[in-house]
Amino acid sequence: MTVQENATRARVVIVGAGFGGLSCAKALAHEPVDVTVIDRRNYHLFQPLLYQVATAGLSPAQIAQPIRAILRGSRNTRVVMARVDAIDTARRRVRTQDGTETGYDFLIVATGARHAYFGHDDWETAAPGLKKIEDAIEIRRRILVAFEQAESCADPADRKKLLSFVVVGGGPTGVEMAGAIAELARKTLKHDFRTIDPSDTRVVLVEAGARLLPAFPPRLSEAARRSLLRIGVEVRLGVPVTACDRDGVTVGSERIDAATIVWGAGVAASPAARWLQAEKDRLGRVAVGSDLSLPGHPEIFVIGDTASAADGKGGTLPGLAPVAKQQGAYVAGVIAARLARRAPPPAFRYRDFGTMATIGRGAAVASFGRFGISGLAAWLMWAGVHILFLIGFRNRLTVLLDWLWCYFTFGSGVRLITNTEP
Amino acid sequence: MTVQENATRARVVIVGAGFGGLSCAKALAHEPVDVTVIDRRNYHLFQPLLYQVATAGLSPAQIAQPIRAILRGSRNTRVVMARVDAIDTARRRVRTQDGTETGYDFLIVATGARHAYFGHDDWETAAPGLKKIEDAIEIRRRILVAFEQAESCADPADRKKLLSFVVVGGGPTGVEMAGAIAELARKTLKHDFRTIDPSDTRVVLVEAGARLLPAFPPRLSEAARRSLLRIGVEVRLGVPVTACDRDGVTVGSERIDAATIVWGAGVAASPAARWLQAEKDRLGRVAVGSDLSLPGHPEIFVIGDTASAADGKGGTLPGLAPVAKQQGAYVAGVIAARLARRAPPPAFRYRDFGTMATIGRGAAVASFGRFGISGLAAWLMWAGVHILFLIGFRNRLTVLLDWLWCYFTFGSGVRLITNTEP
Repeated sequence: MTVQENATRARVVIVGAGFGGLSCAKALAHEPVDVTVIDRRNYHLFQPLLYQVATAGLSPAQIAQPIRAILRGSRNTRVVMARVDAIDTARRRVRTQDGTETGYDFLIVATGARHAYFGHDDWETAAPGLKKIEDAIEIRRRILVAFEQAESCADPADRKKLLSFVVVGGGPTGVEMAGAIAELARKTLKHDFRTIDPSDTRVVLVEAGARLLPAFPPRLSEAARRSLLRIGVEVRLGVPVTACDRDGVTVGSERIDAATIVWGAGVAASPAARWLQAEKDRLGRVAVGSDLSLPGHPEIFVIGDTASAADGKGGTLPGLAPVAKQQGAYVAGVIAARLARRAPPPAFRYRDFGTMATIGRGAAVASFGRFGISGLAAWLMWAGVHILFLIGFRNRLTVLLDWLWCYFTFGSGVRLITNTEP
Repeated sequence: MTVQENATRARVVIVGAGFGGLSCAKALAHEPVDVTVIDRRNYHLFQPLLYQVATAGLSPAQIAQPIRAILRGSRNTRVVMARVDAIDTARRRVRTQDGTETGYDFLIVATGARHAYFGHDDWETAAPGLKKIEDAIEIRRRILVAFEQAESCADPADRKKLLSFVVVGGGPTGVEMAGAIAELARKTLKHDFRTIDPSDTRVVLVEAGARLLPAFPPRLSEAARRSLLRIGVEVRLGVPVTACDRDGVTVGSERIDAATIVWGAGVAASPAARWLQAEKDRLGRVAVGSDLSLPGHPEIFVIGDTASAADGKGGTLPGLAPVAKQQGAYVAGVIAARLARRAPPPAFRYRDFGTMATIGRGAAVASFGRFGISGLAAWLMWAGVHILFLIGFRNRLTVLLDWLWCYFTFGSGVRLITNTEP
């Protein structure tokens, strides 16, 4: 059964309702096409704030919005909640797990990425990554349970292990997680325990490379490192993780006992390359041409974290929300031009409006080309931009209020331990 | 290992941090006692609004607050997150699942209740009850997935079944659930689908008794029934459920095909009676004396939904939050009087300040002794009282804003389908 039956209009199928997929669907809202957006979730996730769910600062619903609600006004767009398991590029059909096939004239693959364990997939149980809401709830559960168990733990060594947290990966996710755990322990939980002192918490951030935030200028990497030290995070640079289990990690030759480990290192693209039988790079990303189409398949586009697109300087574009958004809108333009038999737009070019990362409450780094700032000014900018880009006015308002409330009171936040039973 | 070691002060152990347990702990905050509150959760749940989580109106964190944060100011109180599995009334010790034993001089058992399936526990898989956050998230998932599946369902009979919802039980939970599902379908989801029309949804409320809300005066029961009919809920009175499975329910001789069934009928107390080897009533509740103590054990008190306490009119007190709260404070007074060797307070007497239930947006019934109101005035009163009693200023503010936002926009709410994967 094909979902789209209208033969007079071009059928566009978008797989994945992340930043790239949604931006493409919205840009096609008034084009003469029938759009089907397929996602295995019913919501779009604002991933840049997912670490705040994992550290009990925000609720899942504050950073997620139903895809149907976002696309309510796009009358040419259908939303299907289903898991894609194959793409037949010869017959131009997308198959979902329930056996349904959806035909397309244009296909956009925007299925994102997951964390990579560099050949150590067995580490995932001990050190979960942070990509989905369920990941964040599980990490939140582990962090909060560690404090609860430490409170009623009689053995000093066990208690020390329970109050030790290791974050692997010095990119934005790792830096933000480490800062947020340190603040949770030192500020939010400060007065809530009787036996332990949460400020005895040890937070270690481990990065195999020479500096934190490698995508930022070295000066800001150093500012981030200093900000982390100031709130009590230990930073290990230039040493890779060589072992990882439920009792801790080995970093170079150093063993760190820790009950809670969070993985924020490395990305690996979704199975899109396999579906498309396409060439993939080291990170599993699909190599695309200058118009983001799959070589040999001008009707298939791959965007966002799933794509390996040239950055015009000999490298490839990073996996960032603004890249995916701009690519989604660009592809919509390519499709519209083809249907209207206009000249295609010039090759895709990413316009970098800046990159930011936070380090706990009131500190951040922001980089805009050659210009970079750090400290409170960067944090205020970070907060403003993130609230602005949050989808849905209601979410913006509640997140803003929660932040203000927590900022002035070191409030208790969203400290729920759920899903503790099978 | 005993948790409390201070031999000079009386040790009070409270099992359960619901309305009763918390009210008791707070009333003891300035008494010369060491209090230990044991709960298997790290949060207190505002159960009267749980149905709003199940129908995607509120987030779990908006109706739950960490127990530690609530009792932060009670310096004589320790909070232990653990599951009690036995009570040794001879040695005066509470044992938790991890093997820890906590000695007590006074024990308060306030462990609440669960839904009862009247000997049909196998119905629970098909018709989950609504007592825990996990229950609410699971019911929300089922409701939202039903709409998603209906949208891509080709078979008309299957689609009809997916869009049919049965709520069992005509008490406040059932009435509120049925009203909220009807409004979700007819208002919130109205414009979000392309194949189905969510207002084709069928919502059936089934009550074995002769009228809805049996705890209210008959006039208000009838007002509630009419309000439900007005928003499109079918009400079946005087017929019991005789069969229940994943495809629907049989009510008397009528078969209702429905993909989603919610159980709001009957309560059964927690295993407290077994722990205490005490006499229990038909609902599993522990019979208590006029000072809420266990007969033969003046040092053990049972309160809230767990207790079967005389109402002074020949019956027993209902399982309501205000009853539990007043009992918790009363027991604290009894303990304080005994320690101070003062005369004990007179027998516990429940002061009824009124009972309320909502029927969707903008309608409710409220009963105050002989005085009763229904309609919008009752709804405004219901909303005011519930926000006022929500623990935590931050929760009050965000719930108020969410309600106002949803009221004026029929906003999309908290429509997240999570925990879909193992």
